[in-house]
Amino acid sequence: MNHVKSLACVSCGASYSSLPSTYTCAACRGILDVVYDYGSIDCEHIKRSLAANPDRSIWRYERLLPVSPGGPRPSLRVGGTPIYAASRLAQEIGLSGVFIKDDGVNPTASLKDRASAVATAMALEAGAATISCSSTGNAASSCAGCAASVGLPTVIFVPERAPAGKLAQLRIFNAVVIRVQGSYRDAFNLSREAIQRYGWYNRNAAINPYMVEGKKTVSFEICEQLGAALPDWVAVAVGDGCTIAGVWKGFRELHDIGAISRAPRILGVQAEGSNPISVSFRTGKPMQPGQEDTIADSIAVGEPRNPVKAVRAVRDSGGTMIDVSDEEILSAMRLLGRTTGVFGEPAGSAGLAGLVRAVREGIVDPSASACAIVTGNGLKDIQTGIRAAGEPITIPPDIALLERELARVAPGVLP
Amino acid sequence: MNHVKSLACVSCGASYSSLPSTYTCAACRGILDVVYDYGSIDCEHIKRSLAANPDRSIWRYERLLPVSPGGPRPSLRVGGTPIYAASRLAQEIGLSGVFIKDDGVNPTASLKDRASAVATAMALEAGAATISCSSTGNAASSCAGCAASVGLPTVIFVPERAPAGKLAQLRIFNAVVIRVQGSYRDAFNLSREAIQRYGWYNRNAAINPYMVEGKKTVSFEICEQLGAALPDWVAVAVGDGCTIAGVWKGFRELHDIGAISRAPRILGVQAEGSNPISVSFRTGKPMQPGQEDTIADSIAVGEPRNPVKAVRAVRDSGGTMIDVSDEEILSAMRLLGRTTGVFGEPAGSAGLAGLVRAVREGIVDPSASACAIVTGNGLKDIQTGIRAAGEPITIPPDIALLERELARVAPGVLP
Repeated sequence: MNHVKSLACVSCGASYSSLPSTYTCAACRGILDVVYDYGSIDCEHIKRSLAANPDRSIWRYERLLPVSPGGPRPSLRVGGTPIYAASRLAQEIGLSGVFIKDDGVNPTASLKDRASAVATAMALEAGAATISCSSTGNAASSCAGCAASVGLPTVIFVPERAPAGKLAQLRIFNAVVIRVQGSYRDAFNLSREAIQRYGWYNRNAAINPYMVEGKKTVSFEICEQLGAALPDWVAVAVGDGCTIAGVWKGFRELHDIGAISRAPRILGVQAEGSNPISVSFRTGKPMQPGQEDTIADSIAVGEPRNPVKAVRAVRDSGGTMIDVSDEEILSAMRLLGRTTGVFGEPAGSAGLAGLVRAVREGIVDPSASACAIVTGNGLKDIQTGIRAAGEPITIPPDIALLERELARVAPGVLP
Repeated sequence: MNHVKSLACVSCGASYSSLPSTYTCAACRGILDVVYDYGSIDCEHIKRSLAANPDRSIWRYERLLPVSPGGPRPSLRVGGTPIYAASRLAQEIGLSGVFIKDDGVNPTASLKDRASAVATAMALEAGAATISCSSTGNAASSCAGCAASVGLPTVIFVPERAPAGKLAQLRIFNAVVIRVQGSYRDAFNLSREAIQRYGWYNRNAAINPYMVEGKKTVSFEICEQLGAALPDWVAVAVGDGCTIAGVWKGFRELHDIGAISRAPRILGVQAEGSNPISVSFRTGKPMQPGQEDTIADSIAVGEPRNPVKAVRAVRDSGGTMIDVSDEEILSAMRLLGRTTGVFGEPAGSAGLAGLVRAVREGIVDPSASACAIVTGNGLKDIQTGIRAAGEPITIPPDIALLERELARVAPGVLP
């Protein structure tokens, strides 16, 4: 028995005792939020059982998740990702302390595994025979990987323009990949029709309220890993709005049950070329769809589905939102790799890019500490990695030429 | 104080109390092996301290490594990778049990991180100011990543033909990458000259005896994770010969100190198009250089540097060697992804390919259990992933057409 009390619509407030068949609010089509009976959660008991639990995956938090304790789970080990104290990075950007949470080492190499693991568990509990979603990115590959680990078929809908590289993971995990001749909207609509007709489990984060629940485990881990050293700010990239909602929910819940005495402020980071949520945050007006012009494909979302949850997360935390250029993202990729040995994909490094800018603009005080979440592995987008990192030095095999070049580009390596 | 007793030449048996400046045997240029004072190791004490140690990285084994306990370490969290009991996979290939050890979730996405972490620790202990190696693959990127995490510069020598994708990780980790106009041998020779001239720390696995020490931790983990369920066989791909030597050394040491009652047999797997070590194993003759004709680039090694260690490892374990075709490797990539949700690079899936063949040929008995080590992440080589996995289904946005295609390729997903 878990602690779920109800599902509440984030738009109109309607409350449901169980998930409606369409997954969204029956009254207004708003996205639902999972509400727990926080009063019934014994914080001291949870702390003691966590301390005694050797499982480092997200399932160590099953009492704070919508799953049935001891229920069926995907076998991939999701979560338990490392956090690094990055002192040289902190010094370079002028902060008292910086932590890097590397979620790119999850099984399919992104934070989305946290959501997909919960989706797969929920699908198994529901007795679903197939999981489906429409996406070309990390959501799809994590869904296909988690489902493959328990032999559950997946049907993934992608738009015609989906790059071949993104399809490799999906096909390796034996997903049925339907490339829809048309736009992303065409793919999404066909997926919706098929999901309804065939009764597949719907993993679309735009609809399924349990995705946020999986994502909140990243914050549970940050709290456990840093303890009393919890940072003042947590920076994370924003695309659809689901991830930042999960990040904040994790901190808020631990604060609500008394496990932490204060929660960090959330710095939401969008790309300048795709920033409808941060515009809505700044203007206070309802979100308007915008363009998708950024190298950070995982956050290139012109019409995000979770703006309400996202804006609320930032507001509730006392945080703010900021936009960064593609150049700033490329620069953050280099900075991250050079100072920590972590290779983040463009969207995965955007959180850090926002942090750098926020320090420069005086939004984050130099005396503050911050954690940037790296949401995806740079190996997902090698081309942009090359663009960020620059070319090698090409020379004939001649030690004199080598020495001349080293003296020019890296004199420090010469004695 | 660690338990290292001496360094012994694997070719002529000469013994050294400390590492010679050239890293190899002064008498015959043979590769050295680190010998510990096993009699002084208290197995029960080690078992107790491991049980109480929450650190899941390779440093939990520092007492069995050549490093100084509590000495400087790279900050990337290496090791602690998951092992999966793959029951559907076992059933498909006809074995009583199969385990998959997924080393592709290491920080730079390969098992080589284990060696590079030890190299970086040793370089820090030695007070080296720069680390260098010549490689285009996982050894180089893991070296650059581990070194970047502690601000140690790296100089990596690559041959002219090094693919751009492989350079992205290196450059992101801010390695000085020297592309040498010429062959791999030209790059290697220039690196050797420069390393000697400038006093850099040499991470070449062909020379540095400590690389095997890092790699043996994968077997320590398998023993801890499986306990009494230790499999009869462990399958691993063989390129240079260093990894398989490390895998066997880990089991042998735990057996020698009494931590396990029996060690698994080692199944060494080479690609048919690059198999000089397995030819030497079968013929009993000294290894002859061969071709490098396989899609599995990480084990395409025409002139391996560790054949003696590799052949000895297989012999001592009572195991054997086997070759697999590129088609068998591609098939193993699909099998692995479909049944476990793990995406291995071609060389990373070759161990499993060998296991499949060994079962078919009666080398491994159906009643046996086996573990295949996935040595690298499939995201390192997306192109081959696509080649292995096949194309998606392309259709216009039409539910009738969708249903027809699903009935054809995946009737199981229809109600």
